[in-house]
Amino acid sequence: MDPDAVAKAFVDHYYTTFDTNRAGLANLYQETSMLSFEGVKIQGAQSIVGKLTSLPFQQCKHHINTVDCQPSGPAGGMLVFVSGNLQLPGEQHALKFSQMFHLMPTQQGSFYVLNDIFRLNYA
Amino acid sequence: MDPDAVAKAFVDHYYTTFDTNRAGLANLYQETSMLSFEGVKIQGAQSIVGKLTSLPFQQCKHHINTVDCQPSGPAGGMLVFVSGNLQLPGEQHALKFSQMFHLMPTQQGSFYVLNDIFRLNYA
Repeated sequence: MDPDAVAKAFVDHYYTTFDTNRAGLANLYQETSMLSFEGVKIQGAQSIVGKLTSLPFQQCKHHINTVDCQPSGPAGGMLVFVSGNLQLPGEQHALKFSQMFHLMPTQQGSFYVLNDIFRLNYA
Repeated sequence: MDPDAVAKAFVDHYYTTFDTNRAGLANLYQETSMLSFEGVKIQGAQSIVGKLTSLPFQQCKHHINTVDCQPSGPAGGMLVFVSGNLQLPGEQHALKFSQMFHLMPTQQGSFYVLNDIFRLNYA
């Protein structure tokens, strides 16, 4: 399958799940997964989703501007780099963000997120 | 060595070299290295540095705002995620950018850049 198509499908799935059923993101992480969220480091699917579901907003809407992807080496991984905007309830202006994912293949032929780094891009 | 210290040392070295001797970046890439620059994909040290040295500005100055890093898996690689500003000559406002590097160990005990993805963050 075309890597760019895989990356776009992952990005669509990730942010749709984030915006509609954040707890459902647990399926995308494993115990070795790492998240750096605005400089805070968290490891393991349960802790990562605990962090994401405890963010101080209930509703949000991601708009994706760019998706770049590259193979990450012989292990079959893929790097996905995203830029976009995050609209929070009651906020007039969307927040710009950048995020990268390192996807690794699962034994079932799918991918999980080994690395996830998120940063807001303050003006 | 502390991964965060390695990442910061790499970032300092990379952007200082970019701003003072762009052709010197060739030492950081190998033939398998990949660059995605504003969506344009380039492979190989020579082609990558050819792209970077032919950008339509001679002088620039990077200011780094954040550096995040994570180990990328059992192969000993490291992911480095950077946000910052890029000041070009004659431009009143700096351009915001995000960039990620996937560093892989060399046989000499150093690192080279396997993956490099760069995006400007337009307002």
